[in-house]
Amino acid sequence: MAHIICAGLGPGDPDLMSVRSDRAVRNARLVAYFRKKGRKGQARALVEGMLHPEAIELAMEYPFTTEVPFDSPAYNLGMARFYDDWAMKLAAMPGEVVVLCEGDPFFYGSFMHLYTRLRGKVPVTVVPGITGMQGCWHATGEPITWGDDVMSVLMGTLPEEDLVTRMQAADALVVMKTGRNLPKVRRALGRAGRLDQAWLVERGTMAGERVARLVDVADDDIPYFAIVLVHGHGRRPEVPE
Amino acid sequence: MAHIICAGLGPGDPDLMSVRSDRAVRNARLVAYFRKKGRKGQARALVEGMLHPEAIELAMEYPFTTEVPFDSPAYNLGMARFYDDWAMKLAAMPGEVVVLCEGDPFFYGSFMHLYTRLRGKVPVTVVPGITGMQGCWHATGEPITWGDDVMSVLMGTLPEEDLVTRMQAADALVVMKTGRNLPKVRRALGRAGRLDQAWLVERGTMAGERVARLVDVADDDIPYFAIVLVHGHGRRPEVPE
Ligand SMILES: C[S@@+](CC[C@H](N)C(=O)[O-])C[C@H]1O[C@@H](n2cnc3c(N)ncnc32)[C@H](O)[C@@H]1O
Ligand SMILES: C[S@@+](CC[C@H](N)C(=O)[O-])C[C@H]1O[C@@H](n2cnc3c(N)ncnc32)[C@H](O)[C@@H]1O
Repeated sequence: MAHIICAGLGPGDPDLMSVRSDRAVRNARLVAYFRKKGRKGQARALVEGMLHPEAIELAMEYPFTTEVPFDSPAYNLGMARFYDDWAMKLAAMPGEVVVLCEGDPFFYGSFMHLYTRLRGKVPVTVVPGITGMQGCWHATGEPITWGDDVMSVLMGTLPEEDLVTRMQAADALVVMKTGRNLPKVRRALGRAGRLDQAWLVERGTMAGERVARLVDVADDDIPYFAIVLVHGHGRRPEVPE
Repeated sequence: MAHIICAGLGPGDPDLMSVRSDRAVRNARLVAYFRKKGRKGQARALVEGMLHPEAIELAMEYPFTTEVPFDSPAYNLGMARFYDDWAMKLAAMPGEVVVLCEGDPFFYGSFMHLYTRLRGKVPVTVVPGITGMQGCWHATGEPITWGDDVMSVLMGTLPEEDLVTRMQAADALVVMKTGRNLPKVRRALGRAGRLDQAWLVERGTMAGERVARLVDVADDDIPYFAIVLVHGHGRRPEVPE
């Protein structure tokens, strides 16, 4: 019977993988990962050089990239069939399958769609990983939250009005899925009065990492795999001057 | 000259430490960690059995536990002097010092107070770690965020009114520093209409882990090292019935 192990790979640097995921990846004989059509796959790229020479690879290719809008019924149905299909294929594998997942699998991860379909049918083990946002705040060299700071994690896909309200209500901010949403995210930060404090981190902890103040990033610059951060500045003990 | 390496230890289970922190901890000859007076120290407990036999330990004992209210000037001054003092001592060490830190050092971590005092004076390296909240959501066996969910991280030390507003505005919730704030956190969740969906996870991924629905936890039960979670339920592709 299949045993599915989803290994959270962390933010990118292989040295930031957990001891448990590192071991699972190196010992795996069946390795599965999501990727966009025609790409190598972000998760697969993170384990380059780590796989066993005899490991068999299962590339789970998304049926759409951007042709179909992600909020359309066609997208929903196509993706549901895609996850149903792969859940069935993985459950039929003759032993341990290690599914590679960027960051933490339970934090906005695609694996969750396989997880809800597989659990109760075959054994599933999920190994947490350092999230991408953590790799990004470490790349800025500044702590993200202090004292009683409220931290909110927002998706760049949200409507601009929702972004503004949430950006005003929190101390520290993390905005994921930026990419082509960046102009909207930037406008929302401006309206919330937070633009001057915002950072953009692209490919945090990976080769090609970029750390910039958002005000210094051109509006037509569409970053790949990037997070926008605003650091909190909560209470901290200081000797008064 | 001293080189300070702060090793994020992750949520508790040593197997969830990053490969880099694991290596730093095992090779360390000078190891420092915070602890409350008269306690062994949570961070120190997490590396039990991992330290080199000749490692020298520096226990940085907090000057107060709960005698002095954390928002008083006396607390601020006492803590500031404590951090100033230890920053000076660590900077004077004759080589690498590994500072142990639960979870991720840059996420509400005490090490940040040493970091701001040490950087620019001696080399400081900070190694991220899986956060405690991740250990806790994995302990529940449920993904924390889906689709466009907004996730907010709140401290149980916040005033009840602030908690209520923030609990209403987010999809997924993480409440840290619960302990004796638990009755207030529970009232706030109730007023925000989120109490039925809330979980309490004590000592996530550690020996003695407890996972319970918050409604099943007695009001006079003061958990130690616990996080309250409400999972998000965002968009996910399903084949319509
Ligand atoms: C679908 S989410 C997956 C999140 C992942 N499960 C985690 O725990 O970080 C993908 C988004 O994460 C962000 N991301 C993840 N890792 C990143 C990194 N190392 N640098 C920059 N952005 C990252 C990007 O915004 C990307 O659009
Ligand atoms: C000062 S914060 C430090 C957070 C840490 N730097 C991190 O990244 O998780 C301490 C709080 O974290 C929470 N915590 C951390 N690890 C935990 C775990 N494994 N289980 C339950 N609560 C945890 C508790 O609420 C505790 O009051």
